[in-house]
Amino acid sequence: MVLTNLRAATLQPGTDPYGLIEDAALVLVGDKIAWVGPLAALPGDYGDLTAQDMGGRLVTPALIDCHTHVVHGGNRATEFEMRLQGASYEAVARAGGGIVSTVKATRNASEDELVWAALAFVDAMIAEGVAVIEIKSGYGLERDTELRMLRAARRIGQMRPVLVRTSFLAAHAVPVEYQGRADAYIDEVCIPTLHVAHAEGLVDAVDGFCEGIAFSPTQIERVFQAAQTLGLPVKLHAEQLSNLGGAALAARFGALSADHLEYLDEAGVAAMAAAGTVAVILPGAFYTLRETAMPPIDLLRQYAVPMAVATDMNPGSSPMASLLLAMNMACTLFRMTPAEALAGATIHAARALGLTDRGTLATGQAADLAIWNCGHPAELAYRIGFNPLHQRIQGGVL
Amino acid sequence: MVLTNLRAATLQPGTDPYGLIEDAALVLVGDKIAWVGPLAALPGDYGDLTAQDMGGRLVTPALIDCHTHVVHGGNRATEFEMRLQGASYEAVARAGGGIVSTVKATRNASEDELVWAALAFVDAMIAEGVAVIEIKSGYGLERDTELRMLRAARRIGQMRPVLVRTSFLAAHAVPVEYQGRADAYIDEVCIPTLHVAHAEGLVDAVDGFCEGIAFSPTQIERVFQAAQTLGLPVKLHAEQLSNLGGAALAARFGALSADHLEYLDEAGVAAMAAAGTVAVILPGAFYTLRETAMPPIDLLRQYAVPMAVATDMNPGSSPMASLLLAMNMACTLFRMTPAEALAGATIHAARALGLTDRGTLATGQAADLAIWNCGHPAELAYRIGFNPLHQRIQGGVL
Ligand SMILES: [Zn+2]
Ligand SMILES: [Zn+2]
Repeated sequence: MVLTNLRAATLQPGTDPYGLIEDAALVLVGDKIAWVGPLAALPGDYGDLTAQDMGGRLVTPALIDCHTHVVHGGNRATEFEMRLQGASYEAVARAGGGIVSTVKATRNASEDELVWAALAFVDAMIAEGVAVIEIKSGYGLERDTELRMLRAARRIGQMRPVLVRTSFLAAHAVPVEYQGRADAYIDEVCIPTLHVAHAEGLVDAVDGFCEGIAFSPTQIERVFQAAQTLGLPVKLHAEQLSNLGGAALAARFGALSADHLEYLDEAGVAAMAAAGTVAVILPGAFYTLRETAMPPIDLLRQYAVPMAVATDMNPGSSPMASLLLAMNMACTLFRMTPAEALAGATIHAARALGLTDRGTLATGQAADLAIWNCGHPAELAYRIGFNPLHQRIQGGVL
Repeated sequence: MVLTNLRAATLQPGTDPYGLIEDAALVLVGDKIAWVGPLAALPGDYGDLTAQDMGGRLVTPALIDCHTHVVHGGNRATEFEMRLQGASYEAVARAGGGIVSTVKATRNASEDELVWAALAFVDAMIAEGVAVIEIKSGYGLERDTELRMLRAARRIGQMRPVLVRTSFLAAHAVPVEYQGRADAYIDEVCIPTLHVAHAEGLVDAVDGFCEGIAFSPTQIERVFQAAQTLGLPVKLHAEQLSNLGGAALAARFGALSADHLEYLDEAGVAAMAAAGTVAVILPGAFYTLRETAMPPIDLLRQYAVPMAVATDMNPGSSPMASLLLAMNMACTLFRMTPAEALAGATIHAARALGLTDRGTLATGQAADLAIWNCGHPAELAYRIGFNPLHQRIQGGVL
């Protein structure tokens, strides 16, 4: 298949940040991109293939949402409402709110229920041109539910034309039954469950939440050592609400990414740069929690740390299912540029998942494309709550 | 048609702010609601009608977007990008940016082009359960283009199953050719064009922008007097960037609404309350412009001023096409409750347009319904960038 009459934002490094090619052609063979370039330079051997006229539209790599918690039970609308009616965090907690309520609902949900609830969000993401979704566990906090969440994630990848990458996140919160015994939880539940999940082929990466309200760097380190033993890459929720040096810890383990990063300092940025760790920017949680500290975007630029952008879709701090909206928020709230936002939802998002075979338009990359009713790629981050997708191609299939 | 097995958020005044009826039934006859109440109380005479099982879903009045500029030429993505690349307002203006660029693009667009560009946003709104859209002129700033915008708005109402209400907004900005001569613009262009537009049946209300960068209260007053002469209701963009007493001025003319209101003071609130003027809350512009002054929500509550919520969809300060997202922003950014946000996008939005025949579920109201894949109505404002609409009924038609 040859796509013609299009403007390609290839995201390949070059003189302009979008890697724009005007009047481009794209050749897809099977599930790979065979060629991309100016139509005038299209090699003659592709002349026999059927040309598909893209009507002058913009074509980008399909989007990649590299940080989500779409698999979970229940929702927290009532808690959202209570807070806005003036209830304190304590009152919400007394009413069973907070992450505890999601853990309870997730433990009570069957695998089918988890899958069906998540599909509503996954389908919304696909409709916005997303072709890869990362899905974390972390609302079970006990063996069976953690495994069930990961199995649900894998099933979603079979049920829908989307590549699912899983992250094992039992080190997300200390469950009620281990309150005050976080070390015991790590040793008795988290690490043993990781071994079981890995043996079942359910784990693509190992994640954690390094924060005063979650786990200490020492505890996270034990989880990362277990991951290392199993040959699994790591990533970390770090420096979201305070600076515990989580990003530097993650970098020491060669982490794929460190995520959130509102309180990241220069030493952390330098450590990430040296390790090639991607900074995953999550403006949805910043927006919902009404945070005021912004991630150090300028420092990340200065050290050339690649920045990804993701929804962080979760029922508490970011019930947001739109990656395009996350891109707009990255610009509006964090002053990233539209080009950085698009790179953050394509090439750098791929790297945050350890994927090098997608995220740009180039020979040999996966034939995952998004075709937009847009003239200029800046329109993708500029619009708010509007989906200009014309169609998506995933694995070479429309 | 009898709809059964549903939870109705009627928005009728009562003990709870949603006017919730559990296990409700709704009877639609033609384009009107004939009856709504608990299924157990359904009158026997409706027993013959075909029952439609709503699967336990939530039913609300269809949404109403009471403040939009969806008809316009071009977009401002490049300007958005320039600003984020560090360009000053002056540099953007030198490059032809700002409202001037939208005026130029709108003047250069044919009626067909205006209609087709707007339909993308109108269709997105309809897909979110919207059944009434207000559309303003105000990017022509000369007779022919102002008329063309209003004709485009009327055509959209004929082309799509949506009720369009137009607002004449020639007093939106002083065009380049009248720079420094705002009074002359009001007298030579704005008011004469209003007469022509009204004679053509294009005007449902008369609007203005009362601000240092736009028109003074005295100039707006002349426009309102012209409206009064023609028997047309008025509304006003007031107190968005400073306090010029625009809301009180609007109230003096019995305005349907005063909109934005970030700098509204208590005297203005009191005047609106006395006049029955609706406060239209527009968080999209606050978000995009990164404003810090919030509208006085507590004062508006205290004086029982009805609050509507709208997208303000426009290419500059609020390129947002999602009313659900505006509802979330009203909660997250302005601390409105989810119930206030829903009332703001239904009953109070109707009142802001002078409509009393829709916006609630009650006997005699228009059969405009939204049926949601939601349990509780708080979910509508809780989610971000996610559309849970199951289906919409407009004028009794699915
Ligand atoms: Zn997360
Ligand atoms: Zn406006």
